[in-house]
Amino acid sequence: MIKGEKGIVLLKDKLKEMGALAEQAVQRSLRAFSNRDGGLASSAKEHDKAIDELEIEIDELATDLLVTTGSAREVRLITVIMKIARNLERVGDEATTISRRVFELNQDQQTQPSLNIPEIAGRATAMLREALEALVEGDSGRARALIPRDKEIDATNKQIHRDLTQHIMAAPISAPRCLNLMVISKSIERIADHATNIAEDVVYLYEGRDIRHTGKGTVRLAEAP
Amino acid sequence: MIKGEKGIVLLKDKLKEMGALAEQAVQRSLRAFSNRDGGLASSAKEHDKAIDELEIEIDELATDLLVTTGSAREVRLITVIMKIARNLERVGDEATTISRRVFELNQDQQTQPSLNIPEIAGRATAMLREALEALVEGDSGRARALIPRDKEIDATNKQIHRDLTQHIMAAPISAPRCLNLMVISKSIERIADHATNIAEDVVYLYEGRDIRHTGKGTVRLAEAP
Repeated sequence: MIKGEKGIVLLKDKLKEMGALAEQAVQRSLRAFSNRDGGLASSAKEHDKAIDELEIEIDELATDLLVTTGSAREVRLITVIMKIARNLERVGDEATTISRRVFELNQDQQTQPSLNIPEIAGRATAMLREALEALVEGDSGRARALIPRDKEIDATNKQIHRDLTQHIMAAPISAPRCLNLMVISKSIERIADHATNIAEDVVYLYEGRDIRHTGKGTVRLAEAP
Repeated sequence: MIKGEKGIVLLKDKLKEMGALAEQAVQRSLRAFSNRDGGLASSAKEHDKAIDELEIEIDELATDLLVTTGSAREVRLITVIMKIARNLERVGDEATTISRRVFELNQDQQTQPSLNIPEIAGRATAMLREALEALVEGDSGRARALIPRDKEIDATNKQIHRDLTQHIMAAPISAPRCLNLMVISKSIERIADHATNIAEDVVYLYEGRDIRHTGKGTVRLAEAP
């Protein structure tokens, strides 16, 4: 059984690998969207499986390490890694959702109103990438700075929903297409939520503060490491 | 610092309390829906806060217990409790989403097509309640039996979405109302997903098998406890 410092290094490596896969899955689904690429969209499920398997590996290794460690610092590190892995697994699920909807959109000859979906997608993937970089670099300041950006993405998603609702009312025939776009926009917004959770976990990890549920960016002091 | 068996008992009690609160939140949001009760709907946020706070308490206690335990069995129990708490927190979030949409629906004089939303709601809350009972009773057989029911709820949600899409195309003026109903139906479906996750965790906890990501109800053997 791998344990101690060596185990922690392996765990971090697996998490980085999972982060890279989740980011690729999102990029792939969004490229499928912008290029109306059905082939890319249909390969999503298989990539999601690799992400799911890594989550299980991380959980198993983390559980083993928790048995042998007696250090509060390591326990905190390991449990946060498990949480981040869970968030990445959900990012993978959202990428699958996007790909599925792209596939449905592509069944249709008509092109869709794309609104600011490419823009919200760009901002959410930037957040995810930066949260993962902050994690790898242990840069809690950078992680903290990311958090307020989630609210802007929420607002853009709401605006997209309002625009699409108007579009449906003006042209009911477009309803199925617009509904797929709403789901895609919502999935992108959720990817930003997960990026925010990861950023909060990075802050917790390196500053010993729990900033969940306190309003984004506000800090509640928790027990120091 | 509380530790050992006493700590585990306290942790389980907090989880049960959190489960009860999450179930109440769902019941309240669904009652608000069926009775068009705006007062009930608007109290949702405050109840969600209590759920969020319990999740933080559980996480903190669990982390303390992980530092002092050296038992593989306890580590597994504690990490599963953390996961279940996370699922319950998300159940609380879905209840808040439902309540918010009920509030929007109530701004409107017209009554909505309710479709089989009360039916899907009944089935999802039954799943949640039974998953929590299986957890409290340590009844992994009961938890396992729950898992296939998730697929039926997914199918009903998809049918509701198709019906609402048809409804929108026939009567575009109803689009905002129908979109709120779609969100409510999706939230109910997600509550069933969380109940399924909890049921899978109960199986893992008491049978030492990881049944995630293997297709609902299929069992992959993992390391025994």
